[in-house]
Amino acid sequence: MRRIKRSDRLGAMMQTLMAHPNRIHNFSEFCDMFQAAKSTISEDVDILKASVGQFGYGEIETLTGASGGVRYRASISPDAAANELKKLATALSKPERLLPGGFLYTSDITSNPEVASLLGRMLAQMFYATNPDFVLTMETKGIPIATMTAHMLGVPLVIARRDTRAYEGSAVKINYIAGGSGEKLETMALARRAVKPGQKAVIIDDFMKGGGTLKGMAEMMSEFQAEVVGVGVMIATKEPVVKRISGAKTLMTLVKADPSTGETVIEPTDDLTNQGEVN
Amino acid sequence: MRRIKRSDRLGAMMQTLMAHPNRIHNFSEFCDMFQAAKSTISEDVDILKASVGQFGYGEIETLTGASGGVRYRASISPDAAANELKKLATALSKPERLLPGGFLYTSDITSNPEVASLLGRMLAQMFYATNPDFVLTMETKGIPIATMTAHMLGVPLVIARRDTRAYEGSAVKINYIAGGSGEKLETMALARRAVKPGQKAVIIDDFMKGGGTLKGMAEMMSEFQAEVVGVGVMIATKEPVVKRISGAKTLMTLVKADPSTGETVIEPTDDLTNQGEVN
Repeated sequence: MRRIKRSDRLGAMMQTLMAHPNRIHNFSEFCDMFQAAKSTISEDVDILKASVGQFGYGEIETLTGASGGVRYRASISPDAAANELKKLATALSKPERLLPGGFLYTSDITSNPEVASLLGRMLAQMFYATNPDFVLTMETKGIPIATMTAHMLGVPLVIARRDTRAYEGSAVKINYIAGGSGEKLETMALARRAVKPGQKAVIIDDFMKGGGTLKGMAEMMSEFQAEVVGVGVMIATKEPVVKRISGAKTLMTLVKADPSTGETVIEPTDDLTNQGEVN
Repeated sequence: MRRIKRSDRLGAMMQTLMAHPNRIHNFSEFCDMFQAAKSTISEDVDILKASVGQFGYGEIETLTGASGGVRYRASISPDAAANELKKLATALSKPERLLPGGFLYTSDITSNPEVASLLGRMLAQMFYATNPDFVLTMETKGIPIATMTAHMLGVPLVIARRDTRAYEGSAVKINYIAGGSGEKLETMALARRAVKPGQKAVIIDDFMKGGGTLKGMAEMMSEFQAEVVGVGVMIATKEPVVKRISGAKTLMTLVKADPSTGETVIEPTDDLTNQGEVN
């Protein structure tokens, strides 16, 4: 059998780490994979750590102790994030996106895996410290971004529905106040088996105007005795300033959308790390 | 400046390739990134190729010519795929998943990014050769799997809705026959700007009984003068044998679901590569 060289291991090791973001891999997994000693694997990990730290947009971390090992976490530098959000804000501000009623067409952007993956990376980075058990979103438009956020956080995704479905089994159904200006009452349903008491949720959605849907999701979590440890949205409108939920971390702000002129102004959030606490 | 060694480059290069599956990276991108000659980068790529080929579950390919470069493609060996599908089929066959009416609770599995990513890998592998422009699914349950399939294929995701929405702009709305046994008429809507004439679509969904929803999506593509080049589903029921759409590639088959006994039998598809042509 040919001796396995370091350069033979690095690519495959990096692939395994990246395929399961935020999951801790025990060193013995790699010892078995490559028939190598722990000290050898440990050196490999240090090399990958330096490489990704220097040139990449993720982080490789080693954890000591009984549950120790190595994990890959997606991340992005503040400069790179600001740059990417600026490009996205420009793309979203195009006049042809403004629809009758002042609605903004964003579906092509929110469902693009390239964008969802980038935003999932930013959102995951905001919420690593909260150590959530799952990501919650409500159908439909936010699902790709929430999927990628959950993927990066290494946790399951839970999807609330507008109504109960036979294939979701028994469900909790609540009413919530939707819409930024009006007082429209909407329903939201979630399978009873989807969430366990005491679990921690990060809520992700693509758009926040009044914050009613996010507040509804937070209320749904109360029904399940689950704790909301973070709320993240792609775009929040500037108006109304007071939202039904506070402390949501937002990636971009919709400052202006004037249907009469077609003028849309979307601004990236300057400092992603410096935002309020969820309340 | 410290000289950049090969082992300093491999991890970061692998990360860049994997972050954008199925996208061709020109060698010059890496030459700039690492201040290295093309011949050096070319050797790096060969090393990664061998490493991933030997130990990984993906493939690194070099393409020559004007639009040449290097790309990472997610893949999985037939043995590994069969093994993973068997585990999944076992998890899905648990009696407690069978709901009143013979429905199967799968939402926790379909929305788990770990599973969605695995199935997306298998589905992408089935459809690389069709070279699609986008992946199409219909809300809601199949979206995470379709997101990951589109991610692995490196193409956008398009989501058909049950009805028109103000924020989707002008839409094409069709009727289609849903349900495996009944003849229930349902509606499906898709934003006019979501698809361009002549584009090629791969349709992905989580479940197929009669095939009505998939047929509806195929008819929607006709409305847009787009071509359906592939159809992939996670689970298809054995009965009815004749579906409204033919040639769908399926990962698992629901052989039996008996609400009176709670017995559910789900079998993984033996040979993922040997299935019919879409029609």
